[in-house]
Amino acid sequence: MEIIESTQNKRVKEWKKLLTRKGRRKQEKYLIESPHLVEEAIKFEADIEVIIVRKDKVEEYAFIYEQAYSDVLVVTKEISNSLSDSMSGQGILAVIKITEPAKTLTGDKPILLLDEVQDPGNLGTLIRTADAAGFEGVILGEGTVDLYNAKTLRSTQGSHFHISVLHGDIHKWIPFLSEKNIPIYGTALDERAISFRSIEPQERFGLIVGNEGNGVNASILKKTTENLYIPIKGQAESLNVAIAASILMFDIYR
Amino acid sequence: MEIIESTQNKRVKEWKKLLTRKGRRKQEKYLIESPHLVEEAIKFEADIEVIIVRKDKVEEYAFIYEQAYSDVLVVTKEISNSLSDSMSGQGILAVIKITEPAKTLTGDKPILLLDEVQDPGNLGTLIRTADAAGFEGVILGEGTVDLYNAKTLRSTQGSHFHISVLHGDIHKWIPFLSEKNIPIYGTALDERAISFRSIEPQERFGLIVGNEGNGVNASILKKTTENLYIPIKGQAESLNVAIAASILMFDIYR
Repeated sequence: MEIIESTQNKRVKEWKKLLTRKGRRKQEKYLIESPHLVEEAIKFEADIEVIIVRKDKVEEYAFIYEQAYSDVLVVTKEISNSLSDSMSGQGILAVIKITEPAKTLTGDKPILLLDEVQDPGNLGTLIRTADAAGFEGVILGEGTVDLYNAKTLRSTQGSHFHISVLHGDIHKWIPFLSEKNIPIYGTALDERAISFRSIEPQERFGLIVGNEGNGVNASILKKTTENLYIPIKGQAESLNVAIAASILMFDIYR
Repeated sequence: MEIIESTQNKRVKEWKKLLTRKGRRKQEKYLIESPHLVEEAIKFEADIEVIIVRKDKVEEYAFIYEQAYSDVLVVTKEISNSLSDSMSGQGILAVIKITEPAKTLTGDKPILLLDEVQDPGNLGTLIRTADAAGFEGVILGEGTVDLYNAKTLRSTQGSHFHISVLHGDIHKWIPFLSEKNIPIYGTALDERAISFRSIEPQERFGLIVGNEGNGVNASILKKTTENLYIPIKGQAESLNVAIAASILMFDIYR
């Protein structure tokens, strides 16, 4: 296996650019890190350009990279750390080509739509939970934080390899679902919203959750079938967006 | 108002020690940061030793600290930043005395018990959601991450001021609840667990969730009334612990 030892190596320099959104957009690639994410990428046939293994982990991770058809490069600890977002790099990374899913969503199973979700951890957790709940996919509306951010990817736990995650305009998805008679539920705290407990379980629906501070945009809430709220019994003012979405996903889709 | 300008000031040095668990244990105090948390501390009558305001925020935050009966000190940006855990310090902090709640829990409303939850963000979110769900309180079992960590406190959004959060031994809480005929639900993925959907809503119960990697300790799971799991439909291997607990809290207590 080829070993790269210089931090000035051309490929290393290109990989480092993937730590920024700009670099990812330009190269149309992103970095994943951790044995679990690399295993998921292989298992779910992501478009892996190269797997990068830290020198001291070549033996330990052989069972992972030997399953892949992609190139494997060995790097020094210094290089590995320079590509890692976290303090405790685990010594295995991969460069993945960004590809939007081949087929779009049908609405035959529930869809989660995100309106300006800002926190990477929330985005990743929303995708992971939508996967666990059996949703068909997730639409990232405009203004949503970057999917390929290291923190987002860590929180997905690989679920973005399992279900379709698309960028899209929520204003266009609403009529698409409506025409199929699929109900669309917004989430809101105003007086026109109804308790989620008054909704019957559904096989097909769209669920829209919004920005951590401002919720779902009013222009979107006007177009939904119904807007839901989660009754709060204690003295907390609100729920975290990923928590609220999870309660709704598991309650409405059983 | 007194202004502190030297980073070598004795009080500043003592406050800085509150950034570590050791320092907090020794002084029996902790730091909170952000206008929202300081407001919640005042509103819910936490034992505030002093409120610390950054020079340029004295006017902006007057409406907050003027409600408090505690001392207010003004500090430089340098001092304020040195006490802040986050990059974007908001210029208002408070030193709070650590006091265990005066009365213990009765079990008359549901109780959340945490077994070795390790991530500060998860702990804070669990407390916030237990508050929102109307729980009586939260028991932090041995091995649970520090409540007074800046990240934990940020995620609580002040809910630790609203409901009782106690340190305790889960092995002792189980018989306490059992004697009152209060069911105790563990969470597990093994074959002896049952789907949470088979449980009727309850007015009183204990819910135990566990460590991010290992779940609830087997020695605890043996002593519960029933162990629950959340059926996963997609290809995610598991749910985040705060997400799982939230789904269960809102489903079992309505």
